Amino acid sequence: MNPAALANNQDTVIALSTPPGKGAIHVIRVSGEDAIRVTNKVFKGKDLEAQKGHTAHFGTIRDKDGAIVDEVLVTLFKGPHSYTGENTVEISCHGSDYIVQRIIKVFSEEGIRYAKAGEFTKRAFLNGKFDLAQAEAVADLIASDSQASHSAAMNQMRGGFSHEIKELREKLIHFASMIELELDFSEEDVEFADRTDLKNLIYALQRLIRRLTESFALGNVIKNGVPTVIAGKPNAGKSTLLNALLNEEKAIVSDIAGTTRDFIEDEIIIGGISFRFIDTAGLRQTEDKVEAIGVERSYQKMKEASLIFYLFDSKTANYEEVKEEVLHLEELGTPYILIANKIDLIEGGKLPTEFDEFKEELITISAEQKDIDALRERALHLVKADDFRTGNTVVTNARHFESLSETDKALEEVLNGLDLGISGDLLALDIRTALHHLGEITGEVTTDDLLENIFSKFCIGK
Amino acid sequence: MNPAALANNQDTVIALSTPPGKGAIHVIRVSGEDAIRVTNKVFKGKDLEAQKGHTAHFGTIRDKDGAIVDEVLVTLFKGPHSYTGENTVEISCHGSDYIVQRIIKVFSEEGIRYAKAGEFTKRAFLNGKFDLAQAEAVADLIASDSQASHSAAMNQMRGGFSHEIKELREKLIHFASMIELELDFSEEDVEFADRTDLKNLIYALQRLIRRLTESFALGNVIKNGVPTVIAGKPNAGKSTLLNALLNEEKAIVSDIAGTTRDFIEDEIIIGGISFRFIDTAGLRQTEDKVEAIGVERSYQKMKEASLIFYLFDSKTANYEEVKEEVLHLEELGTPYILIANKIDLIEGGKLPTEFDEFKEELITISAEQKDIDALRERALHLVKADDFRTGNTVVTNARHFESLSETDKALEEVLNGLDLGISGDLLALDIRTALHHLGEITGEVTTDDLLENIFSKFCIGK
Repeated sequence: MNPAALANNQDTVIALSTPPGKGAIHVIRVSGEDAIRVTNKVFKGKDLEAQKGHTAHFGTIRDKDGAIVDEVLVTLFKGPHSYTGENTVEISCHGSDYIVQRIIKVFSEEGIRYAKAGEFTKRAFLNGKFDLAQAEAVADLIASDSQASHSAAMNQMRGGFSHEIKELREKLIHFASMIELELDFSEEDVEFADRTDLKNLIYALQRLIRRLTESFALGNVIKNGVPTVIAGKPNAGKSTLLNALLNEEKAIVSDIAGTTRDFIEDEIIIGGISFRFIDTAGLRQTEDKVEAIGVERSYQKMKEASLIFYLFDSKTANYEEVKEEVLHLEELGTPYILIANKIDLIEGGKLPTEFDEFKEELITISAEQKDIDALRERALHLVKADDFRTGNTVVTNARHFESLSETDKALEEVLNGLDLGISGDLLALDIRTALHHLGEITGEVTTDDLLENIFSKFCIGK
Repeated sequence: MNPAALANNQDTVIALSTPPGKGAIHVIRVSGEDAIRVTNKVFKGKDLEAQKGHTAHFGTIRDKDGAIVDEVLVTLFKGPHSYTGENTVEISCHGSDYIVQRIIKVFSEEGIRYAKAGEFTKRAFLNGKFDLAQAEAVADLIASDSQASHSAAMNQMRGGFSHEIKELREKLIHFASMIELELDFSEEDVEFADRTDLKNLIYALQRLIRRLTESFALGNVIKNGVPTVIAGKPNAGKSTLLNALLNEEKAIVSDIAGTTRDFIEDEIIIGGISFRFIDTAGLRQTEDKVEAIGVERSYQKMKEASLIFYLFDSKTANYEEVKEEVLHLEELGTPYILIANKIDLIEGGKLPTEFDEFKEELITISAEQKDIDALRERALHLVKADDFRTGNTVVTNARHFESLSETDKALEEVLNGLDLGISGDLLALDIRTALHHLGEITGEVTTDDLLENIFSKFCIGK
C-alpha cells in the first residue's frame, strides 16, 4: 500500500511533547492544516499567519474570557518543512502541568484534538518524512541509555538499517525479475537464470539475513542491557570492582543534579553496553536457616541472570572452595567469568598452579589498582559485542527480527522449490513473499493494525 | 545597589530546561555571550552565526570525534532580545536523558558551565528584564496548580504586585522629600509639612500595607491549598460529596494520560482555590480498641487541618448525636462547616426545628443532586477568598510579607516620632528604613545572599 494513501487523517492535533512534571519550560506541539491559523486566534502578539516558517515569536495565550493563560514563545513550521510534514507550532510555556492543561483546554475549545501516542511520528511516516524502521528508531532513541543503544538507534533513525534492507530487496527484486522474465517466455521453456547461480545468490542473501537475525541477540543486549550478578564471598572486593567499573558516563549522569541518578543506580556501562547489576546475598554454605534462604534466592537470581561475575580473593583463595563454587556455577548454566581479584597482593602476581585448571574461565584483576581491562574485554566478548564494535548493523527490534526470519523462511522455500524443480510461477510466489516481509520492515508494506501497534507504543507528544 | 552592577558573571552556561525523564523532546538552554558561537562549533547545518535571531534551524550535534549525538532543532535568540537578555540558544533534542547528558558533555568540553538553579532567571533579573518580585513569580507560576495560584503568580509576574509596591514607594518618597526639604531649611525652623496631614498620609499608607499583609493568609491558602478533612459517619455521603465537588479542572487533568493525575488524587478545586482532602477514619464512639485508635488519629488530623466539612445524613440524623459532634468540633478549634446532606430526601426539604440551634454553622445540601453551591460559597468565605475574587492583589510570598511588615514597623516608628515631636533628620531615617524594606521586594535593594537565597530555590534550567 502506498503510505501516502493512508495520510487522510489530517485534522489538527495537540499534545505535550516534553516529559510531564515541574520544570523550567514545557513544549506543546500542535500539528495539522490549521495549526498556525488556530494558534493565531488564541495568541496575542504578532500576526502569526503573516510570519515565515522557522521563526519564533513571543506573546501570550488567552482563554475565551481574554484571561492570560501564559506568556509563551511560539515557533512556526510550515509544511512540508516540519517534523510531521504538516503545519506545526511548538509552544514553549512555563513548566507547570496546570498551565499545560489550561493551554490544551484553550485549543480544545477551538476544536483541536488531543494527539494519540506516537501520532506526530506516525504523521511524519505517512507524509513520507521517513520509513517505518526509521520511525521506530525514534522511540528507541528516546529510550536509549547507553552508547550502544544510542548508536544503534541513531544509525537506524538515519537510515543505516533501512539501507541494508533496501540492498537486500534490490537483490531479491533482480532475482525475481529474472524468474519472471522466464515466465514471459514460458512457452519456449528457456532458463534465463542459471539455477546454480540463483542458488548461490540465495545463499548470499541468506548469509546476509542470518548475520542480521543473529545480531538480534546482541541487539537485545544493546536495547535492554545485560542482567548481571556480581557474586563472591563478602571480602572478595565486589564494591571495589563496581567502583572501578564505574566509567565516565556514570560520572556525567551524577553531574546533572537529580535527573537520572536513581534509575541507573546499579547500571554500569562497559564499552557502551549497559550491564544491569542485580544485588545478591553471599553464597557460602551456611547452617543458619534465614541465611540459607538468602543463598537460595541468590542462586535463583544467578540462574535468571545473563552473566555472572564470580569474584574471589587471590590471596586467601582456597582451591577446593573455588572448585566447589565453579561446580555450582556450571550447574546454573549461566555464562560466567571467574575472577581472581587482588592479584597485586600475590608475590609474582600469579595464582598457585592448581588454579590452572580453571584457565578457560579464569581471569586475574586488581579492582583496587583499577587493573580490570581483562574483565571488560571478557564481558564484552561474552555478550558478542564485537559486531557492534566493528560498526555492523545490529537488529534491535523484535518486529524486524520476525520479518527477517520470515524472509529467510520464504527464501528457504525458494531453495526447496529449486531442488524440486518446481515451475517459475511458484518460485516467483515465494520470492514475492520474501519481498513482502522485507517490505514490512521499512513500511513499503503496511496495514492500519501494524501502524496502530507500532505507534501506540510511543509516548504521547512524539 | 544597582542591579546592573551585579551583572558581571557573564560566562556562558547550559542546562536542561524541561523536566527530566522520557518524553518526545527535551529542550536544553545555552545562555551567555558565547552561546551562539559555541553552538555553531558543535552544530552541523547552517552557519548559525550568520542567522537572524528568533529563527529555528535543523541539524546535528557532533561530539569531538565527529559522531552524531543527536538530530536537533536549535532556536537562536540574540541579546537583549531573549529571556535572559543575553545571547541564547534553545536546543530541542530527542527526549532521552542519555542524549541530554551527551549534548551537555559536548558543550562542557567547549568550556560551557552547567547552570546553577535559577541562574537563567537570575541573569534576566540582573539584566533588567524584570524586577525581583516578578522573577520570584516565575517560580510560583511553575508551581501553580489551581486557578487562584496561577492568577496570583501571573499577576505578579506581569508586574501587578510590583506596581502596587511602586505606588507605595512613590508616596513614601514624596513624604520623605517633604521632610528632607525641612532639613534644608532647619536653621529657620519651618514646617513644610503639616504634621496632621502627614499623619493622615501614613495612616493611608499603613491601611494599604495592612491590606496587603492581611491578604497573606489568603495568599498562603492560594499557594499551598487548604488542608481539609471531610468527616462524618460512614453513610453520610462523603464519596458522593467528593464527586460532586470534583469540577471541570480535575476532569481536564484526567484527559492528559498519565501526567498529573496522581498528585491531585485528593485535591479539589473550588472557586479556583485548592482544597487538599485528608483521609480520615470514621468518628463514632466505639468500644473496639483498634477502632478507637483510628478515631483518635482522625481527631488529630482534624485538629491539624485548616477546615473541616462535617457531614451528616438529614434523614437519619439524631439531634443529640449531632449536638455531641458539634461539641467535639468546637473543642478542636478548627473552622468547620456542619453539613446536612441528603436534604432532598426530607419532605419539605427542612430539618426538624431543634436543628435551628446550629443555624450559624449549618448548611443543607444534596450531594446526590449536585445541590452544593451553599457549601462552595461557605468554604470560600471561610478561607477569605473574597479578596481574590474581587481581583485585589494578594501577597503569596513569605519574603514579601516579611518586608511589608518591616515597612509597617518603620512607619509606626515615624508615627511615634511625630507624636514625640522628634527632629526631621530622625524622621527621615525611619522613612528611609521603610523605603529600604519596600525596595527589597522588587530588588531595588538587594544583596548577593538574598539573590542566592531566592534563586537557589528555583529549578535548574529556569
